Amino acid sequence: MKEKLEELKRHLAEVYDLENVTSLLYWDQSTYMPKGGAAARGRQLGTMEKLVHEKMTDLQIGRLLEELTPYGESLEYDSDEAALIRVTRRKYERAAKVPAAFMAEMSNHFADTYQVWTEARPADNFAKVEPFLEKTLDYSRRLAEYFPYNHIADPLIGYSDEGMTVSTLRPLFQDLREQLVPLVKAVTDRADVENTCLRQTFPEKEQWQFGMDVIRQLGYDFDRGRQDKTHHPFMTKFSLGDVRITTRVKENQLEEALLSTIHEAGHAMYEQGIQMELEGTPLASGTSSGVHESQSRLWENIVGRSRGFWEHFYPKLQEVFPEQLGAVSLDAFHRAVNKVEPSLIRTDADELTYNLHVMIRFDLELALLEGKMAVKDLPEAWRERYKADLGVFDPGDKNGVLQDVHWFAGTIGGSFQGYTLGNILSAQFYDAALRAHPEIPDQIRKGEFSTLHGWLKENLYRHGSKYTAMEITKRATGSPLTIQPYIAYLKNKFGELCGLNG
Amino acid sequence: MKEKLEELKRHLAEVYDLENVTSLLYWDQSTYMPKGGAAARGRQLGTMEKLVHEKMTDLQIGRLLEELTPYGESLEYDSDEAALIRVTRRKYERAAKVPAAFMAEMSNHFADTYQVWTEARPADNFAKVEPFLEKTLDYSRRLAEYFPYNHIADPLIGYSDEGMTVSTLRPLFQDLREQLVPLVKAVTDRADVENTCLRQTFPEKEQWQFGMDVIRQLGYDFDRGRQDKTHHPFMTKFSLGDVRITTRVKENQLEEALLSTIHEAGHAMYEQGIQMELEGTPLASGTSSGVHESQSRLWENIVGRSRGFWEHFYPKLQEVFPEQLGAVSLDAFHRAVNKVEPSLIRTDADELTYNLHVMIRFDLELALLEGKMAVKDLPEAWRERYKADLGVFDPGDKNGVLQDVHWFAGTIGGSFQGYTLGNILSAQFYDAALRAHPEIPDQIRKGEFSTLHGWLKENLYRHGSKYTAMEITKRATGSPLTIQPYIAYLKNKFGELCGLNG
Repeated sequence: MKEKLEELKRHLAEVYDLENVTSLLYWDQSTYMPKGGAAARGRQLGTMEKLVHEKMTDLQIGRLLEELTPYGESLEYDSDEAALIRVTRRKYERAAKVPAAFMAEMSNHFADTYQVWTEARPADNFAKVEPFLEKTLDYSRRLAEYFPYNHIADPLIGYSDEGMTVSTLRPLFQDLREQLVPLVKAVTDRADVENTCLRQTFPEKEQWQFGMDVIRQLGYDFDRGRQDKTHHPFMTKFSLGDVRITTRVKENQLEEALLSTIHEAGHAMYEQGIQMELEGTPLASGTSSGVHESQSRLWENIVGRSRGFWEHFYPKLQEVFPEQLGAVSLDAFHRAVNKVEPSLIRTDADELTYNLHVMIRFDLELALLEGKMAVKDLPEAWRERYKADLGVFDPGDKNGVLQDVHWFAGTIGGSFQGYTLGNILSAQFYDAALRAHPEIPDQIRKGEFSTLHGWLKENLYRHGSKYTAMEITKRATGSPLTIQPYIAYLKNKFGELCGLNG
Repeated sequence: MKEKLEELKRHLAEVYDLENVTSLLYWDQSTYMPKGGAAARGRQLGTMEKLVHEKMTDLQIGRLLEELTPYGESLEYDSDEAALIRVTRRKYERAAKVPAAFMAEMSNHFADTYQVWTEARPADNFAKVEPFLEKTLDYSRRLAEYFPYNHIADPLIGYSDEGMTVSTLRPLFQDLREQLVPLVKAVTDRADVENTCLRQTFPEKEQWQFGMDVIRQLGYDFDRGRQDKTHHPFMTKFSLGDVRITTRVKENQLEEALLSTIHEAGHAMYEQGIQMELEGTPLASGTSSGVHESQSRLWENIVGRSRGFWEHFYPKLQEVFPEQLGAVSLDAFHRAVNKVEPSLIRTDADELTYNLHVMIRFDLELALLEGKMAVKDLPEAWRERYKADLGVFDPGDKNGVLQDVHWFAGTIGGSFQGYTLGNILSAQFYDAALRAHPEIPDQIRKGEFSTLHGWLKENLYRHGSKYTAMEITKRATGSPLTIQPYIAYLKNKFGELCGLNG
């Protein structure tokens, strides 16, 4: 059995290499590739994804998994080997359901769509990308049809948040929405927060350097990563020793680059924290989109927008930008960074309204997949929902339906639920860390993050994908997914900030 | 047959994609990869090269080639299709001789060696890399043994300069040497050229920008390429639409970055000039190492070190560096850029002594492969030859045997002859272009390069690998490889510069 396991690992290491090489193609596409490289890059991605799929669905892997499954079940559930066999089997079975040619064709289409989107968005030209999106919807449906489902979005959701379905997410989101809407109203009624201090001119170079210094202090390891510029920030991994992030800088929006740098560093610290023993296997990555997002949001919001964090970092920021911030108090700055204001752009949204952005996308995805809405009606439906849910309106599509890359580089369906699951889980994990180490907030005030980082590594990061989102949540926090810590966190934070509790 | 040809092209396009993806892995390794990524990168390269080799030696390709060969021979020799079948067959047969597992193991070893070299070189520590080099020699020999040969270096030379052998190269180099040595002596006896004007401080940013402006004007297409920084300059290609170059800047050595930028742009213009119809096939790349080098050297030396080039560009360079160059005359600058001085470093060498550097490497490679010299004796042998041939001595290895990447990232054997072949051919091609367009030197004086670039595209670049080095040399210049134009060019140029003719 040991020998068979080694053989399995050899196969998996090859798949792992090819997947990571594919990620490098994407990274280069967004960072440094000249535009003349676009057409060939699409073909290269298609070729690689086809290969990955072929190798991952190799019958030899299926045979080995079948032979190894009883052995895996005889081992301790928590052992790396048991997890490897169990998790790989789930991934194998999912991959084996979809023909390689279909996957290649689809990913080729995604690459083309992405390229068109990068031109359509700045030109505010939805019509240009509409026919591509039509095809994307078709591909998304066809992909879902390879699986059994209750709701056609379920298989797509399963790709990123295994175990989650429309029937569990809808009531969860409904619950959350019922608590959020009155809170948003109370906060925006009560306080008219000034954030013009963030809208001065902050030269790019200094912003970039400050962000780099902050994440180094949080625990992002630059020997095993780097940060580059892209239109849309992201994290990507080429091995456990090479986990990169990207961001963009806006000179008149100070919080944008810094918080997105912290956000992506949160994702990256999760991947950098995975134990080396899992390298080269399907276990060497975060376990789900929701759990991944919980870490980006924990570091970005719960840490990066907290009073304690700024007690430490604000004097340093003032030193970097003395003219702009010298006369702005810590309190005023902290309130500005936490200004709640319904807006058009998800990634710029405050903590409270953010989930409303996500739910709009989630609902529209479902409507498209269910055939209740046509792609051509999407821009208008988008505008209507933003008006109804957030009270904001923009006649264009650039800051509307064209704002997020997701539908223009992947499926429609399964792309957004992870963001809200992540917000919910960020508070649940942080809450558990605080119970174990009540000294964490005091440490943050001093710019020390290693206790929090250490708890997260020990209880979450190092396990990679050994456990499902539900398993790891239960193990690390002692309870299943719950919105209570998140709601308590928001009420407490914004209560203090806006004097709602007083 | 048309159908079989299409099937062959599909296979070849996949191989082409995988090769180009592999090149991206190398590019990233030298430009942006954090050090933590090194171990996995080695594995990834191994996995990819194994795949490329497997795909290239797929029996299906062999079968298709066999069926298509009579058809290919029935077509016009100059047709793209005939060339595709003919050239692919040669490449296939070469690839099929070497087992995939051996290739993977060897390229893994090269990646490890490269990593060690990047640390050993700055530390001037040959011992650190010596055991790796021992293995490299062993791999090189074993690779050669898969082929029939007269001299063990012949198969290795054949990889980069097909058709060339030790028995043709030795007398050719001997001939050249006999003409070069007295010329070097005459030039260094006659003139004591001052080049301290190039040794002032020239800030990196301005040097970089000047180099970018120059190559744009020469014809390098930035929409289909880019330049990044690396320790060792190189050109690489990910598709005909994405041909990148790299360089390094030394602030106290003005000619270094500029000339290496032009050099790599010369390689890149060759690749960018290949006709799009050849994309995705083995024909879509330069035909041999020697012909490739002829283009980098033509642009770097025959153009970039010429009086006419500087008549146009020197006033612009003076504007960029008024303090450093304001008082230096065009004549003095032009002489400085062409200073002949025996030195330690090949890539810094002047046009006259450059080939002596190459011949030392060529002879040492042969001695190692023939078993006449041990790897451990290489540093000393290097020093002795430099003293004997160039009259220079350095007790360390950093600027000795460790200076070039080639043996530390590939085989020993076949790595260096292309440089001298390139020098010879650069003059032969330029001579032919002049015969067709005697107005070229006048145009260069005005900063116009399109006639020269156009002639090269038409007669050389667009053909990619359709013709062998010997074929294309004959077609483009009307005669087989000859050292006469090169010797005439050198005698004329240095005669004028040093008043040898007068």
